[in-house]
Amino acid sequence: MSKPLRLGIAGLGTVGVGVVKILQAHGDLLAQRCGRRIEITAISARDASKDRGVDLSPYVWVEDALDLAGRDDVDVVIELIGGSEGVAKDLVEKALATGQHVVTANKALLAHHGAALAQLAEDNNVALAYEAAVAGGIPIIKVMREGFAGNAIHAVYGILNGTCNYMLTAMRETGRDFDVILKEAQEAGYAEADPSFDIDGIDAGHKLALLSAIAFGVKPDFESLQIEGIRKINATDIRLAEEFGYRIKLLGIARRFNGSVMQVMEPCLVPLSNPIAQIEDVYNAVYVDCDSVETSMLSGKGAGEGPTASAVLSDVMDLARGNILPTFGVPAQSLLDPRWADIGDTVSCYYLRLCVLDKPGVIAEISTILRDHDISIEGLSQHGRDPDQPVSVVLTTHETRRRDMQKACSEFANLDSVLEEPCLMRIEALS
Amino acid sequence: MSKPLRLGIAGLGTVGVGVVKILQAHGDLLAQRCGRRIEITAISARDASKDRGVDLSPYVWVEDALDLAGRDDVDVVIELIGGSEGVAKDLVEKALATGQHVVTANKALLAHHGAALAQLAEDNNVALAYEAAVAGGIPIIKVMREGFAGNAIHAVYGILNGTCNYMLTAMRETGRDFDVILKEAQEAGYAEADPSFDIDGIDAGHKLALLSAIAFGVKPDFESLQIEGIRKINATDIRLAEEFGYRIKLLGIARRFNGSVMQVMEPCLVPLSNPIAQIEDVYNAVYVDCDSVETSMLSGKGAGEGPTASAVLSDVMDLARGNILPTFGVPAQSLLDPRWADIGDTVSCYYLRLCVLDKPGVIAEISTILRDHDISIEGLSQHGRDPDQPVSVVLTTHETRRRDMQKACSEFANLDSVLEEPCLMRIEALS
Repeated sequence: MSKPLRLGIAGLGTVGVGVVKILQAHGDLLAQRCGRRIEITAISARDASKDRGVDLSPYVWVEDALDLAGRDDVDVVIELIGGSEGVAKDLVEKALATGQHVVTANKALLAHHGAALAQLAEDNNVALAYEAAVAGGIPIIKVMREGFAGNAIHAVYGILNGTCNYMLTAMRETGRDFDVILKEAQEAGYAEADPSFDIDGIDAGHKLALLSAIAFGVKPDFESLQIEGIRKINATDIRLAEEFGYRIKLLGIARRFNGSVMQVMEPCLVPLSNPIAQIEDVYNAVYVDCDSVETSMLSGKGAGEGPTASAVLSDVMDLARGNILPTFGVPAQSLLDPRWADIGDTVSCYYLRLCVLDKPGVIAEISTILRDHDISIEGLSQHGRDPDQPVSVVLTTHETRRRDMQKACSEFANLDSVLEEPCLMRIEALS
Repeated sequence: MSKPLRLGIAGLGTVGVGVVKILQAHGDLLAQRCGRRIEITAISARDASKDRGVDLSPYVWVEDALDLAGRDDVDVVIELIGGSEGVAKDLVEKALATGQHVVTANKALLAHHGAALAQLAEDNNVALAYEAAVAGGIPIIKVMREGFAGNAIHAVYGILNGTCNYMLTAMRETGRDFDVILKEAQEAGYAEADPSFDIDGIDAGHKLALLSAIAFGVKPDFESLQIEGIRKINATDIRLAEEFGYRIKLLGIARRFNGSVMQVMEPCLVPLSNPIAQIEDVYNAVYVDCDSVETSMLSGKGAGEGPTASAVLSDVMDLARGNILPTFGVPAQSLLDPRWADIGDTVSCYYLRLCVLDKPGVIAEISTILRDHDISIEGLSQHGRDPDQPVSVVLTTHETRRRDMQKACSEFANLDSVLEEPCLMRIEALS
């Protein structure tokens, strides 16, 4: 049996402790599967005295995480600190530069600095692995870089944030509104005290930027992503969507479009008959459209101790077995500068909810604006009847250019009879 | 760039031609991804003169497929002949013995001889890879051996035969019966002239035996699999299942049970609210229950030129990148002799349809037998009313030991008023 692979773990939160637990529980099984043992030699975290429920005494405690880099008893640095800048970035750079492999769960770091870090890893003949950064329970990085390696990928899309999906599910099941459910989710530990990273789509956007890079051989480019979160959705939207045969999901999509790549993260209506509509609670799902495989879908828990620690171990075991790949599936120097599509050019059906004063002539105003932008109405209905009070008008459109739909929306917002920001969502056919 | 990886392909049916097409279309992309070129050097098939729609002139034509083994210009033999015995087996054995890697789509060969072939591969330090043998569009072998390598696997289950799933979908959508749909499927090319391999569950059983081996570290053992196909299902069952909130799927399940492993392939009722119910037509789906990842699901096309050829290429690209694993995820000599559970001990809810004469006392006879076997009825209804003519009586049970259910069924079959073999199906909660 080859000599052990030695790990240094930076960050002992939920995931770091999960990695320790798996190695303590399954050390022999993993050694059998890899042909060598995997051993933790050094660890680092903010608070050495905290009881984390696992025995950490066999490992060297390193005060400054940066000192894990360059240690000659550490072959792989596991970075579980997080954040696109600061210690996490410094540690990853230093470890790669000193010839250590890096395994990380840090989507922000890679979404912002992925191309440079990939180059640094290759220059030093080491791996920068990040299965845990995207949808822990779904080995999507491996599947795209290896399982579908014989394919040209047309599109990758899916539900990439468990908190949002949990909230959308809870809103549907209870009929309660966003603010109530958010508060409950925070109390239950499913949402952070500052929830904006999740509910504004940023976390999911980081993940989409990484999937897009692998799919299309481009440098990850989070900045150019079009992102909208789920704050605008209320219980009425969810109920009406169901009546129309749809379910609302925060969907990230990266797709080849007119010779460039279209990237967008926003809530969409998906058909109830599509399996993605049944992906509920904290589950994630990723679809990949390829030229040979056609459409393949993976679903699993997106986060949490077990799934994320398992993803870290999957990367570690690849390294133990000698399976080292370029970070984004092709050599870093051949990653392309992406040409992003103007999503205003894309064509979809839309769902639109307007909160209007219930008085004669409102529907005429709305339909005139739609006509002026060449937007064809598929269905339109007013929900409720309450003269001179606010009611919802909901409509769905036939295929419409996004730019036209957005122009119409901004004109609706200017109408005196429209009382709130219109709620516009794409209907994603997923065919 | 390293020197090319050279392939010899045995069998130029749909899949073989698909492999040639992908390499001709994406040669540069694949070389970029692997760091070396993948080249076909030699090919072999039954008929050299047949027009297969691709240019085969650059490759050496080998009359006898066995002669691909041992050629010094072939690093990897791609076995696409099929069958558990005969030329396919001889070729794989000879290639492995002479130090060539083997990539195969041959589930029958591996389900019957997997343990011995895995040992032969390891003795010769070469890979025996078979991603294409199970659910082409789903990289389930890679996901289980690598993506979930840090997990103990509790269960693997799913829809593993596209022909059966296509037929069940068509029966549901058209309301037509088995024989009619089978004839249509044969005319459309979705079912073979001799369909028994598919519709009797044998093909899916081969695949389950392989997944079970990886999941539990056991020798694949097709012989001990409990298999039932879909011949007994009629349009009434499908309609009634929907009314009860279920859909009928041919489901293979391998699960840890009482310290051993339970393996069964049979049609089951699955809840409509579970994503697996939405896996329709020729799509396959595989669920894996792990200790850390919990439940993860993958779906995609199970067969066909593109998905299967892509799976072959995935294995080839692993070899090109130097990613070589033990056939079933652990060294062959550590594969265990499986202890299979007696599935008579398992407990499930059941669906039962009886074709009975519509006359007084029949329901009393049925419910007496159920009572005598301690089987608790959840629901019971007679469909239709036609005195002294055949009608359907359908019932669902609460949780029942399989052995008791089967005993009751054989007693039903002996009743004068029961006119056909009872149709018994497990209700699989998939919770």
